Amino acid sequence: MLGPGDDAALLRPSPGCDTVLTADLLAEGVHFDLKTSDPWALGAKSAAVNLSDLAAMGAAPRCFLVSVALPKRKGLGAEWLQAFHQGLHAWMGAFGAAPAGGDLSASRGGVFIDVTAVGEVERGRALRRSGGRPGDHLYVSGPLGGSAAGLALLQKKVKRSLVGAGAAALLEKRHRLPVPRILAGRWLLQERAATACIDVSDGLASECWHLSRESGVGIDLELAALPLARGSEAVAKALRLDPWHLALHGGEDYELLFSAPKAKAGLIEAKMAHYTGCEPQRIGTLRAGSGVRAHGPQGWRKVPDGGYEHALG
Amino acid sequence: MLGPGDDAALLRPSPGCDTVLTADLLAEGVHFDLKTSDPWALGAKSAAVNLSDLAAMGAAPRCFLVSVALPKRKGLGAEWLQAFHQGLHAWMGAFGAAPAGGDLSASRGGVFIDVTAVGEVERGRALRRSGGRPGDHLYVSGPLGGSAAGLALLQKKVKRSLVGAGAAALLEKRHRLPVPRILAGRWLLQERAATACIDVSDGLASECWHLSRESGVGIDLELAALPLARGSEAVAKALRLDPWHLALHGGEDYELLFSAPKAKAGLIEAKMAHYTGCEPQRIGTLRAGSGVRAHGPQGWRKVPDGGYEHALG
Repeated sequence: MLGPGDDAALLRPSPGCDTVLTADLLAEGVHFDLKTSDPWALGAKSAAVNLSDLAAMGAAPRCFLVSVALPKRKGLGAEWLQAFHQGLHAWMGAFGAAPAGGDLSASRGGVFIDVTAVGEVERGRALRRSGGRPGDHLYVSGPLGGSAAGLALLQKKVKRSLVGAGAAALLEKRHRLPVPRILAGRWLLQERAATACIDVSDGLASECWHLSRESGVGIDLELAALPLARGSEAVAKALRLDPWHLALHGGEDYELLFSAPKAKAGLIEAKMAHYTGCEPQRIGTLRAGSGVRAHGPQGWRKVPDGGYEHALG
Repeated sequence: MLGPGDDAALLRPSPGCDTVLTADLLAEGVHFDLKTSDPWALGAKSAAVNLSDLAAMGAAPRCFLVSVALPKRKGLGAEWLQAFHQGLHAWMGAFGAAPAGGDLSASRGGVFIDVTAVGEVERGRALRRSGGRPGDHLYVSGPLGGSAAGLALLQKKVKRSLVGAGAAALLEKRHRLPVPRILAGRWLLQERAATACIDVSDGLASECWHLSRESGVGIDLELAALPLARGSEAVAKALRLDPWHLALHGGEDYELLFSAPKAKAGLIEAKMAHYTGCEPQRIGTLRAGSGVRAHGPQGWRKVPDGGYEHALG
């Protein structure tokens, strides 16, 4: 492969594979705040956000392009940019993606980061949002609500002492350095275990609605089964929210939400954690019909289609 | 191909082809000014800038991703965005590239646009900057200095009456709606006519230096042979610049600069204009050694390695 340096980068496609492409834009004051993001972590997160989209397709990362617009401002010089690139390249490299160019520009506004990630997937076998069928089990690949809880701690909306230093550090890490579920996506594809898959970037509720609509099914969630990130319940309580609120509407957890035939339940529950390092948890069922509802202590309730709003500052 | 709508887009690579990837970021106040750019033209130009990089590799466009960050500001609503997308999609579509996703974000600063274009090129045959050899002829695919002259007119630094309304309109068009030389790049590749190729985005001088360094050759330019865009000499004069200054240092012409063996001179000069719609002009020669110099009325002079600075406002 020919990396940056020529007019464009060259990638030789692997035989029998489709190319997978995704882009994510991060804007200062909207997606991140330089007060709570050091440049290394911001680079790593920029990578993770994109890699998570590849993971949701079951793709193996190959390369990435990164465009950065940087204002003239104290603290945003060559050192900042180097640390950002180190974080980005480290996180991308850890999952197999090599640099393939991009752009650097001045900015008359804030910092803008746009990353395009390129992956590959066995021909015709990419995981989609549209394959779920009534009767399928619904899983999530790990704990939810941790990123939103971590952000509340970083923004000092909730005191760290409330959850303890250890749990607080883990929650903050889930916000600052989410782990893209590349291994989980690859495993689901290779085992033909998932009928549909999407990554949880805007909160479980919003992603359930996407999956419901695009698969043409209804979804029943079991609130008691939601794997709440440790400490996130206490943060929700301090914010006067339902214990499940951050999991359902918090966003940025970057776990995978996937449906699987009942026949694969044994395989997923026995093997997936071992082979992929994630903690799959069954949280509901797909049914004929449409819409998303949740069963909890007060019986059934509708789950609103409220997308997570990235809104800082 | 699966377009926007899933977590990522899927592209099935063509057999025997390499994938070509390039990204370009355009920032308000740096690369464009909303006072002189209507949204349709800005979309079209965003496409052209990226397509030009594919052209320089000899690639055929396949698809693109576009990320836009848009501030809340009067005149930048849904209508603006729709016109921008119409221009982008029209210009991309005209050259064979289909939409494959991207991102849309709020902005706390100005407008930011990042486009990633994806093309394909016959395996191992991409045009590179590094293949030029001493003795090769050096060509440019069309007139130079027109974009910079057009910008000076749009910014009212020079009166339109100086060049006449017809020429002024053409110069402004070269700035607002450059034509990416996709056909020229494809033809050069298919005829195996070029030894090296680069697109002229930052001025001829800067691109000559790139080609010189990456091919390990020196370059001799003949100033009298430079195809100056009609009217650009008058604009240069009004700006108290050398007649060649805008061509050498003006930037954003998006023509192709390419070297070719002497044996291909007949083919290029007889056929290329006919098959590609561009106007190739021989402007110099590659020689052993290094550096870029130009022959003009005062004899030889060194050509400084001055990259075009995008600097508006």
